[in-house]
Amino acid sequence: MQKPSIPKGTRDFSPEEMVKREYIFETIKSVFKKYGYLPIETPAMENLSTLLGKYGDEGDKLLFKILNSGDYLSNTDLTKINSTSPAAFSMQISEKGLRYDLTVPFARYVVQNRNDITFPFKRFQIQPVWRADRPQKGRYREFFQCDADVIGSNSLLNELELLQIIDEVFTKLGISATIKLNNRKILTGIAETIGQADRITDITVAIDKLEKTSFDTVIDELKERGLTSESIGKLVPFLQMKGTNPELIGQLKIALANSSIGLKGLEEIETIFKLTREVQVGINIDLDLTLARGLNYYTGAIIEVKANDIQIGSICGGGRYDDLTGIFGLPGISGVGISFGADRIFDVLNQLNLYPPTVNSSTKVLFLNFGEKEQIFCLKALLKMRKAGVSAELYPDPVKIKKQMDYANSRNIPFVIFAGTEEINSGIITLKNMTTGIQESGTIDTILKKVN
Amino acid sequence: MQKPSIPKGTRDFSPEEMVKREYIFETIKSVFKKYGYLPIETPAMENLSTLLGKYGDEGDKLLFKILNSGDYLSNTDLTKINSTSPAAFSMQISEKGLRYDLTVPFARYVVQNRNDITFPFKRFQIQPVWRADRPQKGRYREFFQCDADVIGSNSLLNELELLQIIDEVFTKLGISATIKLNNRKILTGIAETIGQADRITDITVAIDKLEKTSFDTVIDELKERGLTSESIGKLVPFLQMKGTNPELIGQLKIALANSSIGLKGLEEIETIFKLTREVQVGINIDLDLTLARGLNYYTGAIIEVKANDIQIGSICGGGRYDDLTGIFGLPGISGVGISFGADRIFDVLNQLNLYPPTVNSSTKVLFLNFGEKEQIFCLKALLKMRKAGVSAELYPDPVKIKKQMDYANSRNIPFVIFAGTEEINSGIITLKNMTTGIQESGTIDTILKKVN
Repeated sequence: MQKPSIPKGTRDFSPEEMVKREYIFETIKSVFKKYGYLPIETPAMENLSTLLGKYGDEGDKLLFKILNSGDYLSNTDLTKINSTSPAAFSMQISEKGLRYDLTVPFARYVVQNRNDITFPFKRFQIQPVWRADRPQKGRYREFFQCDADVIGSNSLLNELELLQIIDEVFTKLGISATIKLNNRKILTGIAETIGQADRITDITVAIDKLEKTSFDTVIDELKERGLTSESIGKLVPFLQMKGTNPELIGQLKIALANSSIGLKGLEEIETIFKLTREVQVGINIDLDLTLARGLNYYTGAIIEVKANDIQIGSICGGGRYDDLTGIFGLPGISGVGISFGADRIFDVLNQLNLYPPTVNSSTKVLFLNFGEKEQIFCLKALLKMRKAGVSAELYPDPVKIKKQMDYANSRNIPFVIFAGTEEINSGIITLKNMTTGIQESGTIDTILKKVN
Repeated sequence: MQKPSIPKGTRDFSPEEMVKREYIFETIKSVFKKYGYLPIETPAMENLSTLLGKYGDEGDKLLFKILNSGDYLSNTDLTKINSTSPAAFSMQISEKGLRYDLTVPFARYVVQNRNDITFPFKRFQIQPVWRADRPQKGRYREFFQCDADVIGSNSLLNELELLQIIDEVFTKLGISATIKLNNRKILTGIAETIGQADRITDITVAIDKLEKTSFDTVIDELKERGLTSESIGKLVPFLQMKGTNPELIGQLKIALANSSIGLKGLEEIETIFKLTREVQVGINIDLDLTLARGLNYYTGAIIEVKANDIQIGSICGGGRYDDLTGIFGLPGISGVGISFGADRIFDVLNQLNLYPPTVNSSTKVLFLNFGEKEQIFCLKALLKMRKAGVSAELYPDPVKIKKQMDYANSRNIPFVIFAGTEEINSGIITLKNMTTGIQESGTIDTILKKVN
């Protein structure tokens, strides 16, 4: 019989992996809570009408669609099937899809529950999402997002708060990281200034590649995208700007002097930098004009976080959007949010081995099983252990001690207790420290103190 | 524009619901851990080959199937579609399905990872499952299971441990409950004794209804199912047995005297009762011959838990299975497990209002926002609060104080801090207890002590 398997791009998590992942989720969650964010969860399945058209054509293709249950073909005109596109046919046999991210379900949630929500609404959400991407190293078809958003407030204090949260999360996890910060309004200002206000997408797509490719390639791409030589000539100084954050802001103030939206973006970013200094945000924050992620809906701040000590994609990202809920009929509510990529953070911690020693999955104490008569004694001792909050277990079968010790070793159980007939009669049991090999004897109460 | 909605049978969880659910999950998880169970998680999607045929014909129909991505119709012979059954056509366009329970994925996990697992393997798993059932009150299409299983040990100490876990979980949650206990071997013994060894399914399906329907209806059903009058006559005394656990066991020992498997079942159940007395399991445990759940794979103990103070289906169930992994090519590994129904437990706690007062979702302290100048003071005070572990926030916009107080009230935030120009200049800020209405003044450090 063939060994069973799981769908490509998905993963099982073993106990060892689970405790590490829980450590990550708990760290993020505890910071979210400390800043007053509230948890919500949404269903894995959403109506396709909620999901389609929200992630671009490419995103629509990557949605996992769920076959209607029951006699789902009865409403389908099968005579036309050969002239129907797969996408159109899908719509006839499927009306639900798996969550693709946490942002669109959140927007849907806010609109659906608008009358019960007090704004500003600070919510966090930690759940898996699914994408039918081609699986590759570090990219999965089921992966976890950890989102925090504030919706219903324009204040830049929200941006500050999210930067503080990023700082605190990565400090707690021991990951050295850098925040890249940009502002959509600055990008709009640049497009205006070079006389190409309507070409902002072309411009940012090209700029975005500056990090990965050469300056000349970017220029070529801009030409291919149909930008005039004149506007490319005006863009070049922006691409070549270098310096500290204040230096960059200084240069941009001059270069964007004629764009009111550009200046507004600069003012916002200056305020954010000022606030982060006031509250001593420790993480390095760089103004980065090449940052344009999620351009489709970001309208203000754009945030991305990179780990310093390891080559890996962004480990957190986000930004401000002014009309996320508009797509569901509730326009004009501004929000700002971030999303931690739990799977990449997991990879970073694994590769740099940054887990504290307390992150382990083991039971603390194993009672060896010497037989039926000894069991009752051990069961009663276990009651005491567990009452004191010590995780403890009795090996369930009276098999050879060697096998039981092997179990303790492979489970990384730090303490083993010997309570055979002799020990039980004398009331003095033996505790073995599996790390040091040292054995100690005592009553159950003394032993309990040693392991607690 | 139409208000967006979610698929029928699914739910959003609001912050208030989330904290209550987390309380349930954390309670169950902490008990699992104390008894040495290790967490695993499996993907939401499994290959249909893993899922199909494991839950009976009805179960197969209730699986949510996922449409293959990409050009999924290319491998489909569309000319034959009209002569193809929906089920057969589904198999051509879908090869993955959503998890239907946690038991089959666990069996698949064990077989797939058999070389890395140390047996006995004690695992717990808390994840949602999906069933295309007709939604109705208390029955959802997405719901959560909390499973604990021991696999690779025949010892009845495992059954004991699971009963202890049930006792401890419901004691911690404050739910008064009763465990019903039966043994598949006793049911087999009864079938043998009445001369209908091969009709155990018919017999148990009928017996199972004794609780909900009249004695005569059950007898009619047995006749309909083709049992002879003679065997029904022999079965009647079993259906009419009454008494305490020891009385029932006494009667059964006589009635099953000629069935070795029946006697074995009685011996097992006697041992379990004896062990529960030794370790003083507090919850009431009743031997219940009508209990036959999950008959298809249970081979020993059968467990079900009912809440005493409320009419609702079982809130936990489980049993011993001797060959769960056999379906995936690893025969002969015995296991025993239980599953807590988190959604029903949620309903019980809600209806009986059993949440401790500490279960709430609020931030502890809200700083009112008086304007830009005051913000910096508050931001720095917030640093101190959060450093001390107090969840605290600053209202992000300097809007009317009335609106900010409304926010605090609707969020159930217990403390509000006034730090306007006057307070900041004097260094003495004001704390308002939103429950009592009492106001106190002091430095940030004195105030911090009051809220911590």
